[in-house]
Amino acid sequence: MKIGSGKERKNALSVSREEDFSKWYLAAIDGADLAENSSVRGCMVIKPYGYAIWENIQGILDAKIKELGHVNCYFPMFIPIDLFAKEADQVAGFAKEMAIVTHRKLEVQDGKLTPSAPLEIPLAVRPTSELIVGESFSNWIKSYRDLPVLINQWCNVVRWEMRTRMFLRTTEFLWQEGHTAHETSEEALSEAKLMHDVYHWFVRDILKMFCVVGEKPTHEKFPGAEKTFTIELMMQDGKALQGATSHYLGETFAKAMNIQFQGRDGDFHYAKTTSWGITTRIVGAIIMSHGDDDGINLPSYIAPYHVVIVPIVKDPCDFDAIFAYCEKIKNSCPKNVRIYVDKKETSAQNKKWDYVRKGVPFICEIGKRDMENNSIFYIKRAENLQKESVDFDVFVSSIERMLEHHDEILQQKNIDICEQKIRKDVRNIDDIVDIFNKQENSFVFGKICDDIDFEDGSHPAVKTLNDLNVSIRCLPSGQSGSIGRCVLTGKEASIDVVFAKSY
Amino acid sequence: MKIGSGKERKNALSVSREEDFSKWYLAAIDGADLAENSSVRGCMVIKPYGYAIWENIQGILDAKIKELGHVNCYFPMFIPIDLFAKEADQVAGFAKEMAIVTHRKLEVQDGKLTPSAPLEIPLAVRPTSELIVGESFSNWIKSYRDLPVLINQWCNVVRWEMRTRMFLRTTEFLWQEGHTAHETSEEALSEAKLMHDVYHWFVRDILKMFCVVGEKPTHEKFPGAEKTFTIELMMQDGKALQGATSHYLGETFAKAMNIQFQGRDGDFHYAKTTSWGITTRIVGAIIMSHGDDDGINLPSYIAPYHVVIVPIVKDPCDFDAIFAYCEKIKNSCPKNVRIYVDKKETSAQNKKWDYVRKGVPFICEIGKRDMENNSIFYIKRAENLQKESVDFDVFVSSIERMLEHHDEILQQKNIDICEQKIRKDVRNIDDIVDIFNKQENSFVFGKICDDIDFEDGSHPAVKTLNDLNVSIRCLPSGQSGSIGRCVLTGKEASIDVVFAKSY
Repeated sequence: MKIGSGKERKNALSVSREEDFSKWYLAAIDGADLAENSSVRGCMVIKPYGYAIWENIQGILDAKIKELGHVNCYFPMFIPIDLFAKEADQVAGFAKEMAIVTHRKLEVQDGKLTPSAPLEIPLAVRPTSELIVGESFSNWIKSYRDLPVLINQWCNVVRWEMRTRMFLRTTEFLWQEGHTAHETSEEALSEAKLMHDVYHWFVRDILKMFCVVGEKPTHEKFPGAEKTFTIELMMQDGKALQGATSHYLGETFAKAMNIQFQGRDGDFHYAKTTSWGITTRIVGAIIMSHGDDDGINLPSYIAPYHVVIVPIVKDPCDFDAIFAYCEKIKNSCPKNVRIYVDKKETSAQNKKWDYVRKGVPFICEIGKRDMENNSIFYIKRAENLQKESVDFDVFVSSIERMLEHHDEILQQKNIDICEQKIRKDVRNIDDIVDIFNKQENSFVFGKICDDIDFEDGSHPAVKTLNDLNVSIRCLPSGQSGSIGRCVLTGKEASIDVVFAKSY
Repeated sequence: MKIGSGKERKNALSVSREEDFSKWYLAAIDGADLAENSSVRGCMVIKPYGYAIWENIQGILDAKIKELGHVNCYFPMFIPIDLFAKEADQVAGFAKEMAIVTHRKLEVQDGKLTPSAPLEIPLAVRPTSELIVGESFSNWIKSYRDLPVLINQWCNVVRWEMRTRMFLRTTEFLWQEGHTAHETSEEALSEAKLMHDVYHWFVRDILKMFCVVGEKPTHEKFPGAEKTFTIELMMQDGKALQGATSHYLGETFAKAMNIQFQGRDGDFHYAKTTSWGITTRIVGAIIMSHGDDDGINLPSYIAPYHVVIVPIVKDPCDFDAIFAYCEKIKNSCPKNVRIYVDKKETSAQNKKWDYVRKGVPFICEIGKRDMENNSIFYIKRAENLQKESVDFDVFVSSIERMLEHHDEILQQKNIDICEQKIRKDVRNIDDIVDIFNKQENSFVFGKICDDIDFEDGSHPAVKTLNDLNVSIRCLPSGQSGSIGRCVLTGKEASIDVVFAKSY
């Protein structure tokens, strides 16, 4: 670290994005004190600053989810494995990555704590809750009058990951999972689309991230889904990250769990269901979308602090007056601006760089001169740490606008980076190979025909994609319908897709 | 159920408290639609109305916990069993009731889904998080300058229960667990007491429940604690329910997890830690404290709705006008009053009784006449469903005061019931036997000497207590210090205690 060494500082993190994006990512997490690895394989500790970001995400999304008529509940985290067996796709999709509870005691055997009292039916820790929710739905839903049922829960889930990475891929993670049941396919499909739109709004307008929205190709759908809608975010290294998904499940889970209702026609029908979720992974996406070589950057909506005020006291006699001036700044700003006055006894210089790494939008450094001039000196995190000094009144009356501007800058910077990595000029698989092998990771737009069996994967172009670790991220919304050439087969094609490497 | 049968109604629940308190409890949960059993042994589904109560509890407590300087985090729910082995009391306290994950896959064997891929080190699902939090504390805390550390998390925990009961005792439950580390014993002890005071404030001033606060006797402490402070609530059947606990843990977990810091003296010291928690069990306590034969009753702070408005439309032509009048009531009340206008097409009579069972403080029934008279007809849930009609303006200007009054009534009713079941007149074990065998469950206050070994339990009076299922709930705060006779041994004694049966 170059900070505090007396030499000219380059950046607040020890690694730059350019040097090593993966190491930079971990350094950014560490620098902002967001999370740490635990002794539990694949599980992380979300530290206070990281968790405060998640709480802000929860607050905004929870309000929106409720505004749209959903209510929160809580379902058991254990799923008896025989219940799990009721839906073949779910078994295929999750059986290889589930934590299984088999015993209900520990006992000392040969001086070692050992599981004892085996369960008759082992329990899976939920990797997702369609089955256990479906069981309740089948109790709750008897008539079309009981529909729609619109529920949501915030909870932890477990998917056993072999290669983990903080926030992006952890064995246990936190999420919100919505589950709804409807009378008709149309209603269910429009619910799935509505929640897709909500996630789109959330990542674009709240988190200020660049993304491509669309539908997953058949071979990439959620286990049991008829349609999966996705938000594909582009990270600064050109790789895609699935930001949130919304699934139209048709009658899959209604049949597995027997969710039937008596319809307006007097006959019994299966309900049509949906599910949709966003996870703590989104925190990783924020880091990789907005972070720079000085640390993370946070859009104002989810920033734990909008402004941190660091008092700079050279003469102990000035302590009280400077602290009072700092408090006055805090108390004069509008109440919705989150401000923290850091009175800790550590060095002001260290504090400043801590808050730079934490992505606090505005860092004020307030010394005697500022107090005497009734002015405020501050650093603009999103504008390359540019410094400015303004009158007290100007600051407090414009801080809300400054935060809006901060968000606009983050958004524009992210768009500028991402738009450079959009390729719409590929003609065939060789062009794709060239981009990913010789140029840089990108979102590659192209057309495909519907002749290719991706699941089977024997087609040479599909093999090439697999070797490259490139996949179809989605069929973007607003398909043009125009006819062109399939970039994989050369045949006539009309389906627009986006290829990318992904997290 | 007698409702809607056309016959004279007795009560909104099929069982009264008097007839069978246990069955009444389950009928009250069912009647208010709070929760249901799931197919997962010992786990319940918390339904929307029950979860909304929990969310209100979370909102109030979370704000208070943060106001006192604590920050939220999230720790892994899995604890490697070798970590667990580091604290003998924890093993003794929890090993018999833990869910153990031993495998990380499911595989089809002989046509049946079967656990596969065994873990090298099995994982316990957290029954509580002192050990896993302690591991992080040992990384975070290096110097006295790092202290205190004040954290909290809201999460699920699992304690394998053989006999379960909704809310009161479930295998998986939700809670808040605070964990703090301090430089000195004094500081840690006062933190534990502070949080005990917070819980006391919460159950008394927010939840309006009668309780006795104090310290657990040595043999009833939390595994690993030096002192456990408890809130002992009295249910309407005279049994105690432990409402929340706060533990002073001394150096127990600091030693187990090596939480050491360099002190002001330059030497290394173990940190002193605390932990404290409240669980979804408190919802069960609210039911059994305030419920009556018509269903549950909710203190206003945590009631999902303060007022529900049921439109009564006899002539379809009046629909729009009556609905508009109902909306006008809603929109004219202060914003902090939670009001729901129930426009569903079901019968108004059924709705009314649903909301009675749900414990909505004020249920308005609004028909054409009310609209024409610009008046509001409402039922006071806490006052034996007393009916009243007032002018529109009176209602909207006094609803806040009415809610305060509602809370006062709930509190006073609960105090009246509980104070009758307080016994301070026992002289010896025979009196105690007489009360619990022949009279009624009570909180029995008496003195004990410190000669009795409760852990050993061989003392005849202790055996008698155990046979009665009566235990010492706590040493109430504000010990008198006066000298009297031990109700168990007859010897000189100065320790005030409370005996009771408990949930």
